[in-house]
Formats: sequence, structure tokens, C-alpha cells
Amino acid sequence: VTHMFAPGNNELTVQEGEILTLTNQSIGSGWVEARNSRGNVGLVPEDYIEVKTILIISFVFVISLLYLEHIMGEVGPVWLYPQIQLDCVVADPKKGSKMYGLKSYIEYQITPNTTNRPVNHRYKHFDWLYERLVEKFACALPIPCLPDKQVTGRFEEEFIKMRMERLQGWMSRMCRHPVISNSDVFQLFLNYRDEKEWKLGKRKAEKDEIVGVKIFSNIDPELPELDPAQVEQKYEMYSQFTRSMDNSVKELLAVGHLHWKRCTGPLQKEYRQIGKAFQNLSSVFNTSAYPREYTLKEALTATGKTYEEIAEIVAGQPKKDLHFLMETNHEYKGLLGCFPDTIAVHKAAIDKVKEADHLVVMNKISQQDKLIMEKNLSTMSYALQAEMNHFHSNRIYDYNRLVQFYLEEQVKFYETIAEKLKKALGQYTTM
Amino acid sequence: VTHMFAPGNNELTVQEGEILTLTNQSIGSGWVEARNSRGNVGLVPEDYIEVKTILIISFVFVISLLYLEHIMGEVGPVWLYPQIQLDCVVADPKKGSKMYGLKSYIEYQITPNTTNRPVNHRYKHFDWLYERLVEKFACALPIPCLPDKQVTGRFEEEFIKMRMERLQGWMSRMCRHPVISNSDVFQLFLNYRDEKEWKLGKRKAEKDEIVGVKIFSNIDPELPELDPAQVEQKYEMYSQFTRSMDNSVKELLAVGHLHWKRCTGPLQKEYRQIGKAFQNLSSVFNTSAYPREYTLKEALTATGKTYEEIAEIVAGQPKKDLHFLMETNHEYKGLLGCFPDTIAVHKAAIDKVKEADHLVVMNKISQQDKLIMEKNLSTMSYALQAEMNHFHSNRIYDYNRLVQFYLEEQVKFYETIAEKLKKALGQYTTM
Repeated sequence: VTHMFAPGNNELTVQEGEILTLTNQSIGSGWVEARNSRGNVGLVPEDYIEVKTILIISFVFVISLLYLEHIMGEVGPVWLYPQIQLDCVVADPKKGSKMYGLKSYIEYQITPNTTNRPVNHRYKHFDWLYERLVEKFACALPIPCLPDKQVTGRFEEEFIKMRMERLQGWMSRMCRHPVISNSDVFQLFLNYRDEKEWKLGKRKAEKDEIVGVKIFSNIDPELPELDPAQVEQKYEMYSQFTRSMDNSVKELLAVGHLHWKRCTGPLQKEYRQIGKAFQNLSSVFNTSAYPREYTLKEALTATGKTYEEIAEIVAGQPKKDLHFLMETNHEYKGLLGCFPDTIAVHKAAIDKVKEADHLVVMNKISQQDKLIMEKNLSTMSYALQAEMNHFHSNRIYDYNRLVQFYLEEQVKFYETIAEKLKKALGQYTTM
Repeated sequence: VTHMFAPGNNELTVQEGEILTLTNQSIGSGWVEARNSRGNVGLVPEDYIEVKTILIISFVFVISLLYLEHIMGEVGPVWLYPQIQLDCVVADPKKGSKMYGLKSYIEYQITPNTTNRPVNHRYKHFDWLYERLVEKFACALPIPCLPDKQVTGRFEEEFIKMRMERLQGWMSRMCRHPVISNSDVFQLFLNYRDEKEWKLGKRKAEKDEIVGVKIFSNIDPELPELDPAQVEQKYEMYSQFTRSMDNSVKELLAVGHLHWKRCTGPLQKEYRQIGKAFQNLSSVFNTSAYPREYTLKEALTATGKTYEEIAEIVAGQPKKDLHFLMETNHEYKGLLGCFPDTIAVHKAAIDKVKEADHLVVMNKISQQDKLIMEKNLSTMSYALQAEMNHFHSNRIYDYNRLVQFYLEEQVKFYETIAEKLKKALGQYTTM
């Protein structure tokens, strides 16, 4: 829907869903002044817009924007998401070697959807990227761990496949993050054109000085300051939430692991035994030399074979459904494990602000220092809130998809077994 | 279909399926002489009849009959089955007491379908009946054991219900047996009119002298004698069959027991844990203070509850399907356990006949004795063959019904779970 608010009269033409930058909030009479994406400035009625704090992806400054949308509920500050979602495909693991074959390694091909041009990386490059992201962002953003390092058996096909799948999961999550995916180091990783560009970029990234708490240092003068007490309360909530979700995820992983082991172990064995028992009975019946035995004998054999098939279906099922549930929860476990440290950085900033009055009295810091500290806290708080909102929205999406997929596969599983048993049942005579 | 074979010409009118008694097998030219159930004697074309040895239920003599049936294959000697199958209902267990309440017991009501008049019996009366049947028939017929005696907890409702069910199974099997069900002692047990008749009948049964091998002593002069070597071969087959079926039944019982324990133990627990894990995740998500959480939260709760329901379905399933399979196999285990002793009696008779020539030479027995022994062996062999055919036909019926029922319940089980999961799945949003 296009709304034209009498453009001749200094009013702006806007589309539903369009993002506007607030240029003057104090026009009054129900109007605000804003700039649209084409650079035009004009008036927009307050009723038609939703004010949202969107954190610009450069991350070093925060800006207040208007968001024209009727339905969306208010979630507080959010990152500014790019129009096109970055993603990449990790594929085609190849064995490479160095030093005349003395050292060999696995190289993965990563193709971003933006350039569609593949780049190659070894696990150790992913690890280097991870280190850079932690160094730069871990104060503000939880950076989930890479899939585990493994030394022995790392060339085994099964392991390579699993690692690739996990690297894909990690990369997709990083791509989905508007701050991380837009950072120089991440862009370098995905888009370098040659070895020279890669090496230069690497050196530059390693020398990056805007890392850690420094990323909060450029302060947006436009944003309203937040009350430290309220901020503290919010952090307490985030802390509690991520802790209890961490426990819940661990519980799911534990029971999933148990169930996996049961399906591929005792249950498979048991269904095989049931299958064997029916087939043995059939063999015995076959030796009776009694006529009219044929139908029952055949039906019992079919029943036995069906249970043997069920044994394999049961044992194969976790790979089909539980696997995805476990992998995603595993990923979330890693992600949730990062929150305490990230939140601790923010809590330390609150403590510092709390101390500030006392420090001013003691002449340890100036009044100006104190104001900067308070402003800093607000910036950090906006960032953490945006990050939590990012986390929540991803979490809802991921878990919805995850459990939905799990249930779909479970339904298929039970239906397949029911079908197979029905077929076996059809072999019996109704007497 | 009624066949009239020119009745004016000494030919008999017979119905399809009618049982005829062979009066003269040596008419020649494709004809035999037979008597129908109305006592008329006449000629019947050999092509239209199936010669079958049917063992008359009085059991002390064996008679050759003609059986007019086109489809039925040849199974050798069979018992003569009554037109109406005897059956009974064991129900309504009541606590009774004796000696001014010092001794209490459970009395069951048994109602035969013939009189529809209930009689009461305690477990010890069943036991008395069992002892009589063993004494009289165990040489020729395997008499399956009664359900176990149990001293402690025998008034517990669960135990009484189980015992009643097993007594019902035992009684039904006895009723189905044409020789046992027609015996005086069994008829007394089902039909006595008062305490006096019961006590008199009991005394008479306990004094019965035609027991053990004596039941074979009245010899039918009409039946062709059987070759001891062929008889021995048959016994060897019976022996092998019952032994291997015994093993197979024990295997089914063992795996059934294992599966039962798994369903009511670890599997139930595990599905409950899965249910709890989903519900806990839902509770955690509920504390996020993030909007648009509601649908997922509700869906996760529904998923958790569904798995909790599945836990109870899984734990309750063995009672629904495995129970019947186990009970019947348990019964067969008891029955099969009787065969070695029964067959041993028959094998001893073969050994005796094998020795006979030697004994005649040694003047230990007369030539007449030897002929009687051989005739005796034939009679016994007809009886055992009839019994094996009875066993086979019941076995085929029982196992067909048994596994059919088990599979039907298993199909329902898997379909129910699939349905429940589908319902839970319906709560998720497709994003």
C-alpha cells in the first residue's frame, strides 16, 4: 500500500513496510519529519508509523529509525537487516596437500549467494575467522563455537561429512547475523579474489583496533538515554532466560542421545529378535507335514520379515529426524554458552556507572567522564537488546522449523510401520 | 449338494460333507458300500468320497469312516468331532469360606454352552479334574498343565482375574478336545446337579480302572494294521516337530517378555522424558517476554503432552496385544511339554513289538500275544495320529488368530501414535 500524505504540502510518499530515518521528532500536531530511502525528506503522520530502534549494521553508531508497519508488535531495538539475506553453501570437501605431500588437509568450498563465486577454506581458516569474530564482537554478540576440532580420523568420510554439515550450520548462522555478516573480516572470508587479497585482508583484520568494548565507543547523540536500573533488570532477565534455555537444551540433548542409543541398540536388536522368532516359528510349522499349513507359514514369514524391516527402520530413524534436532540443539548449546560472558561485560558497565557518582565526588573522574559512561551504557544496552531480539526471532524460527520437521518425520515413521504391518496382516486368513 | 447314485440300484443318497461308515471296501469296480447317519446302507462311488480314519470319541475303539468332501486334503486318522462344539464360560469369581470363616477360598462359576446351567468350582477342583485327566489320558493325549498354583497374594484382584482367564483358556482347550470333553469325568465337572451327584461322581472317577495304556486295550478288528517301521518314523517326526515348536515357542516367549519389560520400563520412561523436555522448553520460551512466542509455546506444550501420552500408550500396549500372544504361547508351552512323555509311551510299545519275535522264540509270549501286541500298536498309532492332527488343526487355527490379532493391535497402535503426532504437528506454523 502506498500512502501519499499530500506531497505538495511537504508530506512524504511512503510504502507499507518502508524504513524511514527520523529527522525531527518534535514537529507536533501528530506529525514527524522523516527521510525515506531515496533521500526525500517530508512529514509523516505519527499514527501511520511504528517507532523502532534499529541498530545500524556498522555497529559503531546507533540510530533511531521509523518503521512503517501496521501489524508488527514492539520488540524494542533491532538490528537493521539487509534486504537480501546473505547465505552460503559449504560443499565439496577436497583433500589437499602441502610441503610436497608431507602435510595433507581438507579444503571446503564456500559459495556465497551474493557473488556465487566459490572460495576455498580449510578448517583452520574457519578457526582463524572464529578467533577474529570473538576478538572483535564477543563483548556484544555471542559467537557460537566452531564444530569440535578432531585430530584422529579426521580424513574419514563420515567425519568430513559431519564436519562439513556443522560448518555449514555455523556459517549460515553467521550469515544470518546482520552485524557479523557485514563485518570486513567476514566479507573478506567469503569474497577474497586471490591469495594476495586474502593475505592482505588477514593482516589487516589481525591489526583491527576497534575490538572488544571499543566497538561501543562511538556514541549516537540522538538516542534517548536509558535508566541503568531498568537496564540491569533487563540483563537479569536475559541472563535467566539464556541460563534456563541452556538447561532445557541440555535436557533435550541428553534424552535425545538416550533415545538415539536405544533405537540403534536394544530396540533394533529386539525387533530383529521378534522378526527371527516369527520366522523360526514359520520354519518349524513348515516341517509339520500337515496340509493347509502353507498360508499360515507364508504369513508368519512375512510377519517375521516385516519386524526385521521395522528393526532397520527403527535403527535408521534417528539419522532421519533426531539428527537435525540434535544438531540444532547442539548449536544452540554452543550459542547459549556464550551469553554469560557477553552479559557479564554489560553488567560490569552498569557497576561502573553505579560507581560513577562516588568517583566524581572522589575526583577520580570528571562530570564529563560520568556522562560519557552513562551514554556508553545506553549504547551497549541498545546493542544487547538488539542482539537478544535477534536471538529470540531466530530461536522461534529455528525451533518451530526444527520440531515441525521432527514431528513430520515421526509421523512418517509411525505411518510406514503401520503400513508394513497392515501388509503383513493381509496375508492371514480370516477364519 | 446332494448326490443320488441311482438309489433304486442299491446306491446311497449322500450329502456333501456327510460322514459315512464304511461297511464294505471290497465291492470293486470303483464302488464301496457305506452306511449313512440314518442307518441306510448302499453303494457310493469311490471317486466321490474321501477315506478318512475318524477315531470315535468313546476312544476305546477305533473305526474307519468315509468322509464325503471334495476339497479337504488327506490328513490321516482324525477324532470324530461333535456337531456342536462344547464350550464353557469361566466367570464371576466369589470369595467363599469354610470352617466358620477360618478357611477362605475363591469359587469360580463355570457355565457350559450345552446346559447353560452354571456350576461352581474352586481351583482345587480344577486340580482334581486335571489329575483325573492325566491319570486316564496322558498316555495318549497331552494334558496341558493348569495355571500355576500360587499361595501368597491369591486373593488379590489382579491375580484372581489372571487365574480366571487362564482357567478359561484351559477349560476351552479341554472342551475343544472331542475325547476329553466327552469323558465321564469332564462331563461330571461341567454338569453335576448337586453336591451329592458331585461327590458320587468323584468317587466313581477316582475308581475308574480304564486308565493309562488300558484305554488302548479294546481293539477294533476292522482297521488295517500299520507297519511298525512307518509308525516309528511318524513318531520320530512328531517328536522332532513338538521339540522344535517347543523351542520356537520359548523363543517367542523370551523375546515377548523382553519387549514387554522394555515397553513398560525404559521406553515409557524415555517417552515421558521426551515429553517433559519439550514441555520444559515451552516453559522456558514462555518466560522470554518476547512477543509472537505464543504459537510456538503452545505447540511445544502440545508436543510434550503428546509424547507423555505416547509413553502411556507404549506402556499400556503389551496388555493389549502381547498379553494374548504370551498367554497362548504359554499355554502351548505347557501342551508341548506333555508330548515327550506321551510319545515315549508309544515308542515303548514299538520297542515291545520289535522284541516280540524274539520273545515268541524264547517262549516268553505266545504267537497270539504277539498279534495282540501288534494290533495294539496299530490302535495306539491311530490314536496318536488323530491326536497330532487335532493338535495341528488347533495350532493352525490358534496361531493364525493369534498373530492376526497381534498385528491388528500393532497397526492400531502405530496409527494411533501417528494420528496423535499429526495433531501436535498441526499446531506449528508453516513459516
